[in-house]
Amino acid sequence: MKAGIVGATGYGGIELYRILTVHPLINELTLYSSSQAGEYFEDIYPQMDHQESHRLADLDPEKMVQEQDVIFLATPAGVSSKLTPQLRGGKARIIDLSGDLRLKNAKDYEHWYKKPSASEETLKEAVYGLPEWNKEEIQSAHVIANPGCYPTATLLGLGPLVKEGLAEPSSIVIDAKSGVSGAGKNPNPVTHFAHVQENFQIYKVNQHQHIPEIEQQLNEWNESSQPVTFSTHLVPMTKGIMATIYLQLTEEKTLEELRSIFMSYYGNQPFVRLRDDMSYPCTKDVYGSNYCDIGLTLDPRTNRVTIVSVIDNLMKGAASQAVQNMNLLFDVDERTGLTPLPVYP
Amino acid sequence: MKAGIVGATGYGGIELYRILTVHPLINELTLYSSSQAGEYFEDIYPQMDHQESHRLADLDPEKMVQEQDVIFLATPAGVSSKLTPQLRGGKARIIDLSGDLRLKNAKDYEHWYKKPSASEETLKEAVYGLPEWNKEEIQSAHVIANPGCYPTATLLGLGPLVKEGLAEPSSIVIDAKSGVSGAGKNPNPVTHFAHVQENFQIYKVNQHQHIPEIEQQLNEWNESSQPVTFSTHLVPMTKGIMATIYLQLTEEKTLEELRSIFMSYYGNQPFVRLRDDMSYPCTKDVYGSNYCDIGLTLDPRTNRVTIVSVIDNLMKGAASQAVQNMNLLFDVDERTGLTPLPVYP
Amino acid sequence: MKAGIVGATGYGGIELYRILTVHPLINELTLYSSSQAGEYFEDIYPQMDHQESHRLADLDPEKMVQEQDVIFLATPAGVSSKLTPQLRGGKARIIDLSGDLRLKNAKDYEHWYKKPSASEETLKEAVYGLPEWNKEEIQSAHVIANPGCYPTATLLGLGPLVKEGLAEPSSIVIDAKSGVSGAGKNPNPVTHFAHVQENFQIYKVNQHQHIPEIEQQLNEWNESSQPVTFSTHLVPMTKGIMATIYLQLTEEKTLEELRSIFMSYYGNQPFVRLRDDMSYPCTKDVYGSNYCDIGLTLDPRTNRVTIVSVIDNLMKGAASQAVQNMNLLFDVDERTGLTPLPVYP
Amino acid sequence: MKAGIVGATGYGGIELYRILTVHPLINELTLYSSSQAGEYFEDIYPQMDHQESHRLADLDPEKMVQEQDVIFLATPAGVSSKLTPQLRGGKARIIDLSGDLRLKNAKDYEHWYKKPSASEETLKEAVYGLPEWNKEEIQSAHVIANPGCYPTATLLGLGPLVKEGLAEPSSIVIDAKSGVSGAGKNPNPVTHFAHVQENFQIYKVNQHQHIPEIEQQLNEWNESSQPVTFSTHLVPMTKGIMATIYLQLTEEKTLEELRSIFMSYYGNQPFVRLRDDMSYPCTKDVYGSNYCDIGLTLDPRTNRVTIVSVIDNLMKGAASQAVQNMNLLFDVDERTGLTPLPVYP
Repeated sequence: MKAGIVGATGYGGIELYRILTVHPLINELTLYSSSQAGEYFEDIYPQMDHQESHRLADLDPEKMVQEQDVIFLATPAGVSSKLTPQLRGGKARIIDLSGDLRLKNAKDYEHWYKKPSASEETLKEAVYGLPEWNKEEIQSAHVIANPGCYPTATLLGLGPLVKEGLAEPSSIVIDAKSGVSGAGKNPNPVTHFAHVQENFQIYKVNQHQHIPEIEQQLNEWNESSQPVTFSTHLVPMTKGIMATIYLQLTEEKTLEELRSIFMSYYGNQPFVRLRDDMSYPCTKDVYGSNYCDIGLTLDPRTNRVTIVSVIDNLMKGAASQAVQNMNLLFDVDERTGLTPLPVYP
Repeated sequence: MKAGIVGATGYGGIELYRILTVHPLINELTLYSSSQAGEYFEDIYPQMDHQESHRLADLDPEKMVQEQDVIFLATPAGVSSKLTPQLRGGKARIIDLSGDLRLKNAKDYEHWYKKPSASEETLKEAVYGLPEWNKEEIQSAHVIANPGCYPTATLLGLGPLVKEGLAEPSSIVIDAKSGVSGAGKNPNPVTHFAHVQENFQIYKVNQHQHIPEIEQQLNEWNESSQPVTFSTHLVPMTKGIMATIYLQLTEEKTLEELRSIFMSYYGNQPFVRLRDDMSYPCTKDVYGSNYCDIGLTLDPRTNRVTIVSVIDNLMKGAASQAVQNMNLLFDVDERTGLTPLPVYP
Repeated sequence: MKAGIVGATGYGGIELYRILTVHPLINELTLYSSSQAGEYFEDIYPQMDHQESHRLADLDPEKMVQEQDVIFLATPAGVSSKLTPQLRGGKARIIDLSGDLRLKNAKDYEHWYKKPSASEETLKEAVYGLPEWNKEEIQSAHVIANPGCYPTATLLGLGPLVKEGLAEPSSIVIDAKSGVSGAGKNPNPVTHFAHVQENFQIYKVNQHQHIPEIEQQLNEWNESSQPVTFSTHLVPMTKGIMATIYLQLTEEKTLEELRSIFMSYYGNQPFVRLRDDMSYPCTKDVYGSNYCDIGLTLDPRTNRVTIVSVIDNLMKGAASQAVQNMNLLFDVDERTGLTPLPVYP
Repeated sequence: MKAGIVGATGYGGIELYRILTVHPLINELTLYSSSQAGEYFEDIYPQMDHQESHRLADLDPEKMVQEQDVIFLATPAGVSSKLTPQLRGGKARIIDLSGDLRLKNAKDYEHWYKKPSASEETLKEAVYGLPEWNKEEIQSAHVIANPGCYPTATLLGLGPLVKEGLAEPSSIVIDAKSGVSGAGKNPNPVTHFAHVQENFQIYKVNQHQHIPEIEQQLNEWNESSQPVTFSTHLVPMTKGIMATIYLQLTEEKTLEELRSIFMSYYGNQPFVRLRDDMSYPCTKDVYGSNYCDIGLTLDPRTNRVTIVSVIDNLMKGAASQAVQNMNLLFDVDERTGLTPLPVYP
């Protein structure tokens, strides 16, 4: 099969390259870049020099539609809303890693992203690619909206209790923390090493564009959902997300009961691991892997549930989840090419 | 004046040394260590070599009571509960940086610290040393219980709204993050560099011994207080604490009104800085200083208030706050010897 | 094939586990630990939880000899010198990752390691496993002494010019820098996060036990070799080694000529990559991979050559090089199971 | 006295602000910035908010000459070469932290900096401000060329042996490592956190503009000096420089003899600390201070001397050394305002 990556020189694109270059399904990989077309990928990233060289190709939607079986869009907001329609009509399936196709409501996109939205037709065609919750729809999709990094960690943590109607809608507080790679490759004062090192920052309080994405899915699971409180922080590390989630229950449950609810949803999911009682995952537990690790507890003093959900923001939060979606699209075991265990130490 | 530091080779002790060695009030400084008595401080910490050398003295409470004007106890839990009574009766004032004298209720101490508590008499004598809220009591105290690092950040953030009865008691969630120095100097698997680097960890969920300290003060401010949810995380950095605090209001207020309430409490406090609207402090903003920086906002979508409070855990969260208390004890400007601005970058 | 790892819970052992658990040659993997036998590997490292669980087995040399095709010894100095003889006589090939079998001269071992050496017979049987220089001997070996991390980076950098007699013997200075994982998993004051972070340390100046290992190989390449100057530094990062090597030439050469000499040795080596002129590798270029990247230059002002050689200390400097050796022992492509590209960012 | 800082918003400028704002000699401090004039310093750096606010003033050389007693130029290369002549003629002394006035030979500047040099007259007036070697000249100077960060660490390490003619001129190799703040505040791909973290990089091999500055001073100490080999590396930390220096002796000496030579030069210098035998400084030993710590050893196997010299690149390597020079200019104790001990941990 043939695959193409648009935006191959960004952080998401590099991870896609690393995975797809050794993926058993893919025997031809084309890298596209509008800004660096003509250059060799290995000149930009000498560490990726490996067997064959890749010259960055210019974007030519018509040709791409003909040639590729699957096209990954690892592009900034505002690109795939325009590009996706041009890539439809041929055999190529589209997996979009940006936020452009995730929000069903065009107005929400425009409000939170401050950009024009994709067309309603395009939005309608896009399937939200959270495989643990949406496997069947994904398998028959043509266009996948790959979830955002924060929503992936948050939704996998919140899903079981919200779906079961056990989370008190107005009580949900999500305190999320991310490594700096989430801010992308472009250098700026906030990602300068001397500023980030020995620093813990909060940003976009109540304003992050991943809020409507989270709320849209919560609503789908449970119509009585309400707006959530969602804060994002920058951790002085490159990769990893932890979402610490707080909520109150709508009815009394023991921790054991809560754990079996989680197991009923995730017991057969190869990439979600539930921790034993009194054990919580740290972000390094999933470093470089497609896993989402979850721990949870119930505080008898406050009756509040705390759920801890961790992912690698560039893997399960972007590239490896996109490949998991590709595997589902092409009807192979969803673990194909995603075997590596987390790096430690 | 003469000062002594017990536990001078721990992280809190070193910071005390750094501050007191150039403090204008102190002209003689004695360092005590039970485990390393006889050694020279400068042999253990060559970076502290400076003008005169300090040989670590053995603990001799009787002699210390006679000689010292002020004694800082920078010792692990369980030491000052026993040592403090032996240091009373002379002129020496005691400033205890451990948790031993903070909880008025001996049973709380025993439940959360899993150790025998100090005597009721000792607990009764100790004044909780949070200068922004307790200045007068501190000035006439003989024994100061210097606040914990997490409680300092949390209480300074929560104080105004709790005191005014504006915080809905059951709604308070505190998501706290700390640099690794908070775990102390003793090497263990959790503080090994290879484990901490590129890692974000949660620990002691709902079990941290600073919870009762926070709740005791909230109760003092407002009798209708309830248990809080309090989570602690380890950030891959050495110093700094951020407490991200969430709560709902008991009555409708604008952000502007909330800000003026904060200003009415902190406008004249030299070490609390309130950020402008839409600006939030990061931990590096107070690195190496005695400042507590606070930002706050109100989310119209959820009616939840988010308060962000940052300190340097070894400074305002330990050593420099102890010196601020000493300044108050000895009736000099509380800023004396605490002028250094935060280190940046 | 069946493989066993002794010392599976150390840093080298974990990396071996990560590689071997998805290695196509290995269908049964046994983990041994003298200190933690009986425990489950996945309880100690929950991040490695994956398909089947592994209970740590006690060391039983007789049984191991019968059962295993290959045994990796990822043990501290002083263990494999005693264990190796007990593991001989059956089909099991031994790959020792410690320093015990590397030095041919028992007295050198005792001088630098301050421990009793392995027997002369054992030392004689062990083949030094630096595949780029020793492929044939490795293929027919029964016992492999897997090279040290610093020697791997240093020798791959120095090899071509020393072998060709172009390096002035008395002129060689090696300034080496390593991530902290090289110091092993045991917590101690030097690896405490708060000490390492924002710190760059030098250690064991002229005393590192890898010095005789380097000199032994240089001598084998060129009898006129002399002692080298070798310094080791600790970088505030977990993984990676850079050796910056300085030497003077015995005869005049252009940089182009030097580069072709390097290419004549490494042009066909799948895991050594020579950088283009004026480009130097950084340690992240090989992160998580089996590559050794090399850059070099010649200073017309001083006639000194600078060679920069980087590896991942736990991979090419330990575990993945051991697997490369295993591949050679079992006569498969040396890249088998070692395909992952470096992690970036 | 009145002081001005030109380029106050750069890293060097911020450190100057931190020191001068509490310096007993200075009672009025003006901050200048060509790019951000009119803004408030405290809006750009809220962490520096303190007592009085500072509005960034536009550069007006004529006015500055009249008003200021001392002007610090913390500007990029190419600025002070033009600005210095305009600031002469009044009472204001000039301390230039850039490289513009350091090289006496205009051609050297143009070759290494690739920019037009300052006029010969300006170069002639500037005194190289390395106080440990040049105190008297500094005291009577009007213009100080404050040394570069790498040269400060290197020259303080090399000085005694070169001055005594004990360093074999052709044998000197300097392997220098710096924190990332040395690269300045401007964000770029090389200083992006995600690139720097878990990475150790070499750069400008044999091409660093500090090479001629080092060689100029070596030549002044000893006419038989020759070009040195000098490599620079980027450490994943914000602050700190270590220069590991290798050389061969021109005559046999014991380590004890070498140490007494160092003591004869530095025994009375308040900011140079020589380590005991077998002890070497790490960069954190001088963090946030004006110290230069030095360790040295002699390898009997190679007859090579290894000298380890560490500084804080923004303090002794820039801002605090500039203030030390100011103290000398104004004839006060050179330690005035420079008392803070290194930060630890």
